Amino acid sequence: MGNEKARVGIIGASGYGGIQLVRLLLEHPQVELTYLAGHSSAGKPYSDLYPHLTHRVNLTIEPIDLEAIASRCDAVFLGLPNGLACDMAPALLAKGCKVLDLSADYRFRNLNTYTEWYKKDRQDQATNNQAVYGLPELYRDAIRDAQLIGCPGCYPTASLLALSPLLKQGFIVPETAIIDAKSGTSGGGREAKVNMLLAEAEGSLGAYGVAKHRHTPEIEQIASDLAGTELRVQFTPHLIPMVRGILATVYATLRDPGLVRDDLITIYSAFYRASPFVKILPHGVYPQTKWAWGTNLCYIGIEVDPRTGRVIVLSAIDNLVKGQAGQAVQCLNLMMGWEESLGLPQLAFYP
Amino acid sequence: MGNEKARVGIIGASGYGGIQLVRLLLEHPQVELTYLAGHSSAGKPYSDLYPHLTHRVNLTIEPIDLEAIASRCDAVFLGLPNGLACDMAPALLAKGCKVLDLSADYRFRNLNTYTEWYKKDRQDQATNNQAVYGLPELYRDAIRDAQLIGCPGCYPTASLLALSPLLKQGFIVPETAIIDAKSGTSGGGREAKVNMLLAEAEGSLGAYGVAKHRHTPEIEQIASDLAGTELRVQFTPHLIPMVRGILATVYATLRDPGLVRDDLITIYSAFYRASPFVKILPHGVYPQTKWAWGTNLCYIGIEVDPRTGRVIVLSAIDNLVKGQAGQAVQCLNLMMGWEESLGLPQLAFYP
Amino acid sequence: MGNEKARVGIIGASGYGGIQLVRLLLEHPQVELTYLAGHSSAGKPYSDLYPHLTHRVNLTIEPIDLEAIASRCDAVFLGLPNGLACDMAPALLAKGCKVLDLSADYRFRNLNTYTEWYKKDRQDQATNNQAVYGLPELYRDAIRDAQLIGCPGCYPTASLLALSPLLKQGFIVPETAIIDAKSGTSGGGREAKVNMLLAEAEGSLGAYGVAKHRHTPEIEQIASDLAGTELRVQFTPHLIPMVRGILATVYATLRDPGLVRDDLITIYSAFYRASPFVKILPHGVYPQTKWAWGTNLCYIGIEVDPRTGRVIVLSAIDNLVKGQAGQAVQCLNLMMGWEESLGLPQLAFYP
Amino acid sequence: MGNEKARVGIIGASGYGGIQLVRLLLEHPQVELTYLAGHSSAGKPYSDLYPHLTHRVNLTIEPIDLEAIASRCDAVFLGLPNGLACDMAPALLAKGCKVLDLSADYRFRNLNTYTEWYKKDRQDQATNNQAVYGLPELYRDAIRDAQLIGCPGCYPTASLLALSPLLKQGFIVPETAIIDAKSGTSGGGREAKVNMLLAEAEGSLGAYGVAKHRHTPEIEQIASDLAGTELRVQFTPHLIPMVRGILATVYATLRDPGLVRDDLITIYSAFYRASPFVKILPHGVYPQTKWAWGTNLCYIGIEVDPRTGRVIVLSAIDNLVKGQAGQAVQCLNLMMGWEESLGLPQLAFYP
Repeated sequence: MGNEKARVGIIGASGYGGIQLVRLLLEHPQVELTYLAGHSSAGKPYSDLYPHLTHRVNLTIEPIDLEAIASRCDAVFLGLPNGLACDMAPALLAKGCKVLDLSADYRFRNLNTYTEWYKKDRQDQATNNQAVYGLPELYRDAIRDAQLIGCPGCYPTASLLALSPLLKQGFIVPETAIIDAKSGTSGGGREAKVNMLLAEAEGSLGAYGVAKHRHTPEIEQIASDLAGTELRVQFTPHLIPMVRGILATVYATLRDPGLVRDDLITIYSAFYRASPFVKILPHGVYPQTKWAWGTNLCYIGIEVDPRTGRVIVLSAIDNLVKGQAGQAVQCLNLMMGWEESLGLPQLAFYP
Repeated sequence: MGNEKARVGIIGASGYGGIQLVRLLLEHPQVELTYLAGHSSAGKPYSDLYPHLTHRVNLTIEPIDLEAIASRCDAVFLGLPNGLACDMAPALLAKGCKVLDLSADYRFRNLNTYTEWYKKDRQDQATNNQAVYGLPELYRDAIRDAQLIGCPGCYPTASLLALSPLLKQGFIVPETAIIDAKSGTSGGGREAKVNMLLAEAEGSLGAYGVAKHRHTPEIEQIASDLAGTELRVQFTPHLIPMVRGILATVYATLRDPGLVRDDLITIYSAFYRASPFVKILPHGVYPQTKWAWGTNLCYIGIEVDPRTGRVIVLSAIDNLVKGQAGQAVQCLNLMMGWEESLGLPQLAFYP
Repeated sequence: MGNEKARVGIIGASGYGGIQLVRLLLEHPQVELTYLAGHSSAGKPYSDLYPHLTHRVNLTIEPIDLEAIASRCDAVFLGLPNGLACDMAPALLAKGCKVLDLSADYRFRNLNTYTEWYKKDRQDQATNNQAVYGLPELYRDAIRDAQLIGCPGCYPTASLLALSPLLKQGFIVPETAIIDAKSGTSGGGREAKVNMLLAEAEGSLGAYGVAKHRHTPEIEQIASDLAGTELRVQFTPHLIPMVRGILATVYATLRDPGLVRDDLITIYSAFYRASPFVKILPHGVYPQTKWAWGTNLCYIGIEVDPRTGRVIVLSAIDNLVKGQAGQAVQCLNLMMGWEESLGLPQLAFYP
Repeated sequence: MGNEKARVGIIGASGYGGIQLVRLLLEHPQVELTYLAGHSSAGKPYSDLYPHLTHRVNLTIEPIDLEAIASRCDAVFLGLPNGLACDMAPALLAKGCKVLDLSADYRFRNLNTYTEWYKKDRQDQATNNQAVYGLPELYRDAIRDAQLIGCPGCYPTASLLALSPLLKQGFIVPETAIIDAKSGTSGGGREAKVNMLLAEAEGSLGAYGVAKHRHTPEIEQIASDLAGTELRVQFTPHLIPMVRGILATVYATLRDPGLVRDDLITIYSAFYRASPFVKILPHGVYPQTKWAWGTNLCYIGIEVDPRTGRVIVLSAIDNLVKGQAGQAVQCLNLMMGWEESLGLPQLAFYP
């Protein structure tokens, strides 16, 4: 580990992804936060947006000046709405800046898929070719060598960590995979929307984006790679009356009906042996999202139903940490040659 | 409708099922509440248990004296832990009292299934033979003629209302049915348990009883009847940080991949045409549990995923009303020859 | 009670006040809802705004045409932002329509006070002179004779019901009155605001409008009348992470330090003897806001601290019912000569 | 700072105070956790009580053997119900162990006050004389030299940090102080109680212990010391539907009506200049409890109402950290000669 801190910036620091990054990077032992950039809030002290940081964070939001950013940062996180990062990344990369994009822009190998689901034409095929999908548990080595990371969506993170050992090792009939996912409302971001008001969302529960949520093709791309065959998954997100956390309940039919739960617990433990943030639970224990609150952990519980021949996998993460900013910092750690878990919380406050 | 009110009692009135029944029956135009019975709280004014009823409910909890109850009641609701009703119902029925049991005791045609899942031997086969499963949307006519009702569990109510049209009319491959259900914590009753404390359950989410919840065989019994073939369903309940409400997300593979969403909306609307409490939502609208809060309604939303060939049905109820006490009152209405919806709320307070 | 139903309209039906009125009036036995009017949503079916009313409410929102409204309505509720009702009420009254305004426009006898706190000049002194403050527990007779009601704010309702017996009968030193009030977030209305998002407001608690909330002069006007002397109260509102409910904790120094709690319970019970919605709790019982959920009730608990010589009064209401729409319907009942409690819920669903 | 870590134990580690201590001490750079002791759970792995610690904490709960504890610990935290610590502390102290008691046992200089409010006779006057009240912002120097700390209650911490500058410097009329406090339900501990169930407490709000809560004499003891005169405060706690956090809203009449808000902000900032955990907010900003979530911070907002001559001070803490375990660790830091803020979180996750 070098003696000098890395200079790190954030473009789009005002949203929930941004404030998590600020929170994590301020306590990261190898990082100096040198640039917060934004459009609408340029010129404001950052603590105007988040008053609990008054007297704690003295940074002011600066305009999005790519030249200046590249000269003052070794690495930059992009926390912008979909469709903006792809217009900035090429210039930042050209100046030698590492780029970690939290939007969907660099998650798709095939830009046609991106354009189909995100309704934007893309000209940056060459840049896109450099991008690595930022899920360290699957692509640790590629991330170490990457200059550009497409950080995974929150649902794909929880879903793929639950599914990967099954798909990779051929334990399930791929087309039977169903992901019933539940998320706290912070996943919707800091934009004021009526359906996200406490008065509307509290004490209630519902599905949304049924059969058409944009995280579906993202899950399918990686799942297909793992399975070695093109596959479709059923993915249904639900909004839960809580702030943070995702639980993915994953169903699939086992190829070998003789496989039992304890076998799978052993298989999962081996699969994630080198992954410090994935915790495989003992038999009969199912994860609570609160266990991961404010941490970069993913808890996984596994059950087999001998009556139906299905495996049920439950994975729980903090959608804003392992599902977003924490995972991005985990990627940064790998890209910089630091310890993978550096500066990333692993102990929740409970209750 | 007769001029005289029916005399109605509740055995086991102290829990959440009991307080819902008290609430509904106090405002029921044809009912006089004549007997509240309980073990541990016998002798106490009911408002000691629920202080908001001070000066509103002047009833005192009396001992469980079956003789006295039968003489003072035309119909009795039993809101007791599983395994107690089957020891009381025969005596009550013998004295001419109609019985509506909220526990699992009279839900199973086959007492072996009951004994396997509820760990109690049963001697009352003859009485059990008289019992009708109290889901009016499926068994309206039988309920009208019944003296003994086994009221459905909360999860089976939401699940079966979502599945019935598909199973009855053979639209799905039966063994593909997966029910991912989510419930508020009031479903756990008024017993003090650490995992149900606000401090533990708030801000969190998890599954429980995976592959072994006792509502599974109850769903399977009715689903098998509808499908005309013995089938197994996958059922997974989750605990949601809210007080009331169940959402069932039901997945199944369509036999005919050409069937589209709007066809199914038409089919569901026809199936439930005579059912005043089931509301089929227009395309693209998915139910929120809060819409059913404090009502006897069941909202159903339907989606077809042409990419996977699956139908996804979402049903939302208030677990304590349509999922328990309200449905029992709906059955009482039918048994007494009253209008099915008498005294049952149909308009939620929102938000 | 007449045989014909009264024709009733709502101008400004899209917000939380509007939906409560719709909910209550649809089940009111003497009311026919004939006109829903709004600006931005004119032309839309009402169920587009509140999808749980699909197939239940067939009304379409119409433009705000005062002529048409007055011809089709015997009484009109105004649920508009502050400063709009005073431009509409005179025309409606002139055509013989009774008007019940839910905004602040007709709450102040002295229009200078209104202008000082609400920043709008007013020309309708004559109309304002006709307005009666719509708190039936204090002004029942005047409301019966009124054509124009200024319905109280939610905080003033809870605060004044707690304070009135003390002030009216001179039991406290008026200037010592402190009201620490707590409200669910639905009090902020259906407007999308960042601080009202579930992600921001859930799991948190804070004060707002300290020493400057606009309900202060409204409380002071009525409190001064009751006390027979001009007085100032200390009023501090807080936002609580829940949907509905207000709790007012009221502190004041007793003039007679020998007065004990049970005396005051007797005095309060007598003061509210003719008021069907105010429930005085027995000693040692303090109200929970949830007891009033979805009802027009106000629960009041009383304590005296002999160590400090203070009385502490706790009052709990549903901010959207007794604190807004329910109280307005209570006024309508009085104005129409109906029973005061007609069509107003008195039994909460619990829990 | 020495090179060797201090050996630290916890007696009573199973409750919410215990799990916070475990959480904080595991990441404390100068502490080695050597002993977890408990009665009912002795023999169990600690992760049986808190499954999210599976594979993270390998400690087993041992019996409460004071001899063994003293030999294996340099300092011990006691997280027991009131009335037990006073039977253990003398023996631990005699063996040279530093003792930090989280219960009420060592908070009172005058044991008669303790006995009056806590209903237990005490024989350990000599030991009690050694105890220092563990509020570092007021008693930093005494804590540094102490062997025995009576850690403050959660409400007294929030209340006294809000009141101290006013009382110490004579700005207010002491007898006018009113503390209206609001707490999340985790303050009630991990015991299963019906009124603490999510189903009961969610969506609701109420006061408890009005005019008789046992934190009252604790606040009064310290407040009287600061004021230099025996005084009584009015203290009312409320239960809020959230997990963590306390907000104290403090009212008092200013002696000098000319004192303005900005003067007081300056005075508070000076008073807490050397206190790293107290954050005085700029004018017009009032604290949200969530800002302190999982940290040892206390946020203070100040307002003056020139209309009434009162000051209103708002203080927010995490009741389980600054209100309990974090503050105890802060005391340990001082007792051991370490930096006061060592190992204590100062940055909340937001939202």
